[in-house]
Amino acid sequence: MSEINIQFGGVTKSIPAPATVADALKAFDRDLPKKSLAAKLNGEEVDLNKAISDSGSVLSLEAITPDTRDGLEVIRHSTAHLLAAAILELFPGTKLGIGPALMEDPRYGFFYDVIAPRTLTETDLPVIEKKMREMAKRNLPYRREDVDKARILEIFKDRDEPLKCELIDEKVDGTASVYYIDNSPFIDFCLGPHVPHTGKIKAFKLLALSGAYWKGDSEKDQMQRVYGTAFATQEELDTWVRQREEAEKRDHRRLGKELDLFSIQDEYGQGFIFWHPKGGAIRLEMENYLREELIKRGYGLVFTPHIAKRELWQTSGHEQNYSDSLFEPMGMPAKFAEETEFRLKPMNCPFHIGIYKSQRRSYRELPLRYAELGTVYRAELSGTLHGLMRVRGFTQDDAHIFATPETVEQEIGGCVDFAYDVFRTFGFEKFKVELSVRGDVKKDYLGSDADWENAERALVNALDARKISYERIEGEAAFYGPKIDIKVEDSIGRMWQLSTVQFDFNLPERFELEYIGDDNSAHRPIMVHRALFGSVERFFGVLIEHFAGAFPFWLAPVQVTVLPITDRINDYASQVGAKLKELGFRVEVNLKSDKVGAKIRDAQIQKIPFMLVLGDKELEDGTVAVREKVTGDLGTMSVDDFIKMAQRLKESRALANV
Amino acid sequence: MSEINIQFGGVTKSIPAPATVADALKAFDRDLPKKSLAAKLNGEEVDLNKAISDSGSVLSLEAITPDTRDGLEVIRHSTAHLLAAAILELFPGTKLGIGPALMEDPRYGFFYDVIAPRTLTETDLPVIEKKMREMAKRNLPYRREDVDKARILEIFKDRDEPLKCELIDEKVDGTASVYYIDNSPFIDFCLGPHVPHTGKIKAFKLLALSGAYWKGDSEKDQMQRVYGTAFATQEELDTWVRQREEAEKRDHRRLGKELDLFSIQDEYGQGFIFWHPKGGAIRLEMENYLREELIKRGYGLVFTPHIAKRELWQTSGHEQNYSDSLFEPMGMPAKFAEETEFRLKPMNCPFHIGIYKSQRRSYRELPLRYAELGTVYRAELSGTLHGLMRVRGFTQDDAHIFATPETVEQEIGGCVDFAYDVFRTFGFEKFKVELSVRGDVKKDYLGSDADWENAERALVNALDARKISYERIEGEAAFYGPKIDIKVEDSIGRMWQLSTVQFDFNLPERFELEYIGDDNSAHRPIMVHRALFGSVERFFGVLIEHFAGAFPFWLAPVQVTVLPITDRINDYASQVGAKLKELGFRVEVNLKSDKVGAKIRDAQIQKIPFMLVLGDKELEDGTVAVREKVTGDLGTMSVDDFIKMAQRLKESRALANV
Repeated sequence: MSEINIQFGGVTKSIPAPATVADALKAFDRDLPKKSLAAKLNGEEVDLNKAISDSGSVLSLEAITPDTRDGLEVIRHSTAHLLAAAILELFPGTKLGIGPALMEDPRYGFFYDVIAPRTLTETDLPVIEKKMREMAKRNLPYRREDVDKARILEIFKDRDEPLKCELIDEKVDGTASVYYIDNSPFIDFCLGPHVPHTGKIKAFKLLALSGAYWKGDSEKDQMQRVYGTAFATQEELDTWVRQREEAEKRDHRRLGKELDLFSIQDEYGQGFIFWHPKGGAIRLEMENYLREELIKRGYGLVFTPHIAKRELWQTSGHEQNYSDSLFEPMGMPAKFAEETEFRLKPMNCPFHIGIYKSQRRSYRELPLRYAELGTVYRAELSGTLHGLMRVRGFTQDDAHIFATPETVEQEIGGCVDFAYDVFRTFGFEKFKVELSVRGDVKKDYLGSDADWENAERALVNALDARKISYERIEGEAAFYGPKIDIKVEDSIGRMWQLSTVQFDFNLPERFELEYIGDDNSAHRPIMVHRALFGSVERFFGVLIEHFAGAFPFWLAPVQVTVLPITDRINDYASQVGAKLKELGFRVEVNLKSDKVGAKIRDAQIQKIPFMLVLGDKELEDGTVAVREKVTGDLGTMSVDDFIKMAQRLKESRALANV
Repeated sequence: MSEINIQFGGVTKSIPAPATVADALKAFDRDLPKKSLAAKLNGEEVDLNKAISDSGSVLSLEAITPDTRDGLEVIRHSTAHLLAAAILELFPGTKLGIGPALMEDPRYGFFYDVIAPRTLTETDLPVIEKKMREMAKRNLPYRREDVDKARILEIFKDRDEPLKCELIDEKVDGTASVYYIDNSPFIDFCLGPHVPHTGKIKAFKLLALSGAYWKGDSEKDQMQRVYGTAFATQEELDTWVRQREEAEKRDHRRLGKELDLFSIQDEYGQGFIFWHPKGGAIRLEMENYLREELIKRGYGLVFTPHIAKRELWQTSGHEQNYSDSLFEPMGMPAKFAEETEFRLKPMNCPFHIGIYKSQRRSYRELPLRYAELGTVYRAELSGTLHGLMRVRGFTQDDAHIFATPETVEQEIGGCVDFAYDVFRTFGFEKFKVELSVRGDVKKDYLGSDADWENAERALVNALDARKISYERIEGEAAFYGPKIDIKVEDSIGRMWQLSTVQFDFNLPERFELEYIGDDNSAHRPIMVHRALFGSVERFFGVLIEHFAGAFPFWLAPVQVTVLPITDRINDYASQVGAKLKELGFRVEVNLKSDKVGAKIRDAQIQKIPFMLVLGDKELEDGTVAVREKVTGDLGTMSVDDFIKMAQRLKESRALANV
């Protein structure tokens, strides 16, 4: 009897042939077939019931379990099949298009495109979902068959699936696989893998219905796309649904418009942000805070141009390496007879290098830290643009540190501390840190082994010294150096990649940077890029959603609204408002003739932290009745006491108003 | 006997023919011929000895006196002739090129291009100047002759002046004028007018010698250019010489390099400013001050992109009206298949309009004031670029006010008050205000007569209410509206045009701006552009020269330097430095092993306001010995007392350090 040699998690075992993937898994852990959805055999994703035979060499095996990304993809893909099967049961004669899993779309987890005998409506979705649940309970097997092209075409012709036939005709050369759900009318042309049976699909939800065209081509058949999502557990699905509802309420594009914070105007160009006065007020607070901290931490604040000669971007390598992200070059007016071409900057680095190079540098001056709120422009496909999150022009809170090998570790540590301080100031408390290092093919990376090892040591030591746990990811480094990325979790549990601390072995070479060491000879400095917010625009988007538009006092675009109860109080209200304005607070005095209840509701919609409600009593006593947006009535106090409280909140950059 | 009718200063008189211009002037004021250098007859500049005859109509006459710009031009032009005459006397055989007056060049007042029999050197200049003085004392007449082309060519051929012949051949068609200085070898091909005799030239100075090419063409004859300047009086010349010496010491380009404030790097592009950390610190103080004031004065601070679609600049009219100032359009990467073209912004106005238009506006919201430190890019010829003063990229402290007719006058007043407050904060005390209104040809201007009259009334009323005297200049308004310009006098008496408050009747039309009035129907708002610094870069240049690099405490890039006398004191010095830094002061701690005298000299060269000299006594007592840059020793005080003083200076934005 022949045997098959299998390696799993570093252990090699022999099992008798013939066997299935499930048998092989069982040899290592008897519960594993039950816990797994599919597996990887020599790196290739396969079904659990795939037959394996002795190939002469050791086969490597990995389980695909529901708690991994690969497992989730199998679940979502299989749920898409289940959706189509349910539609076929409910609406016989339906023609099928494609039905993939969606792993990057925050809104949906899968879809299936169909042409049903009648147009589907929103009210059909619960019916289909119910049918899917029934079929899931029946533990219907997913079954694969590998057949040749002629046979597969015959199968789908028999089923009268013209779109599938068109696809098979285009894609198949030789043999291909079809997937059945047994005891259902469903069959698909598909690479798999799939869950062993529908009982493995535990948590799903249909979400939406939209129009679609076959192959996305408006000249071809019109179809309907049914969207849904699926998770490994009901708990994960419930969390996602809650998060989605909450996220929709917090959508920065909706709140941006409602609170008059910013706009994007297609006549001026897609992907460019107009900060309105209220958004501008928040940006200023963000920038002022950052600048204060930069100065305290010994950064020099610089300002550099937004364009530079085309040749500069050849020296920097941007033209060669990132041409698809660069706006095309522009010239001078023809009549100038000056042939210089310029490019908008996609990054600030070469300009900071320009300042570094403006003088001969000594090791005594290093580290030099240059920081800039530098607005950069990058060409992005219009389809990828998304509110403040993905734009074509954005302001980096950028800095470059030029250091000696002796000082760089301390500098990295300083950057990490700075990032954590910044995030905590904005109310983020949970972080995820990734250390991206070289992959296996060392020749794909610039710089010597020693460079990479020293850099990684500096990054690791800085994290270890702060007891920060991190994930080390091989092959995720840029070609020019390793980096630390910091993600933060927002108030509804979503992770946002914000800060980067990044070594660069490339630009110091290209620009021939030097400093004179204590040995009196020239050395190349170490260059570190770092951004904390990342992009001011994107960070603003994250903040809007994190705070659901209800900014803490120090950030709020309108901090105080003064609400006189009757016209008699208007003068007093204006005086109180003027006094607060003079002290630099952002104040509105609402002199409209509305009832005070309506004024309070207005202020709540505007998410203004404090309302000062003024009536005859307050006028007489020179006091203000203070109402906080969330907690309500804070009682009556003197104007000076209110000012003291407001100043304390402002200066401490408090997150809560009381 | 025939008579000639002359109008002068509104009065018409008849004088007997024949007569000269001088005779005519004498008829109105017997001293006028002596006081005048030349005259304007029917608007044309003429010599005093020009013969006039009865033309049948009334001739209008104006005197050109030495105290006017026209008079100064005559003096300088005549002095250029005197220079050439002196060279010919000293160096017979010299060939002459051209010799104009220079009225816009701050360095020179005239030049003459010559090819002398031997190369002239700097040591020849005093000799030539002495000869000019001798000839001036001899009261040699300037004499004009009008002759035909053949005759004038003959004259200059006889004199062996080939370059003049070339010029005459090109330019003359019919008759032309030659100018003699009698009893000298000099003759020129020239339009005049000139002073009556060399005795009228009272105050001049030769300044420099440089190479030049005939017609500026390096393929043509090489010449030498002799530069000088001339004024109406010796006193004016002396003032100018003193100012020039002072200005050279203060040159912002020299100080910018010495104090490491900024650089311009030709590899990145001419005319773009790199603000180094020390310049950046000053810019931040300037910007923070301005932002504080903007917020107090009810401006909304906005941020807008640096580029917009090409079509936008067609709507705004910039492409049609200012194409020579615009960088060429740029596209997206070819592989995007998106044909949109973008242009760098030369102005911020259309973006603020975009924000205005993002909502329907009511009269209740107006005036709306949008302010931005907006960086704009304008194509300028490389030859016109000059340090920070003339650049290709600069940041305007720009604002646009959208107002109703009822509120606009108050808004204009607010702008004027704001400008004066800003200038006084930076130590400017003398101002010159110009009101630019339409010229005679009303059809060259956009907007109705009522628009122009109302706008002018608003500007005039705002100035009158503040008792600000101004010069009204007809024909100096832009085609789209009248304006107020404010010039300031710096510490060495030079005037700088900085602020503008400008009506715009054009853009509200082009962008169809509206607001709903209290009559419930749509109206066009009035739009006012205003900038106070003008350009942050240029204003910074003015400030560097105004303060000669010795910035007041609140602006100084390094405010305090801590100077330990011996190494023993280094720790204490670092503690004092750290305490000041923590409070946001810009501090250097000088731990070099230099003697304290050398450290003090260093600090004085760097123009650092305060030096804290620390020795054993100070360490023991926890005090600091304070030395101010200019006034010297301020005595010993506690660290806290020094901090109190520093905070007072910073918060009050004081101009003097003590």
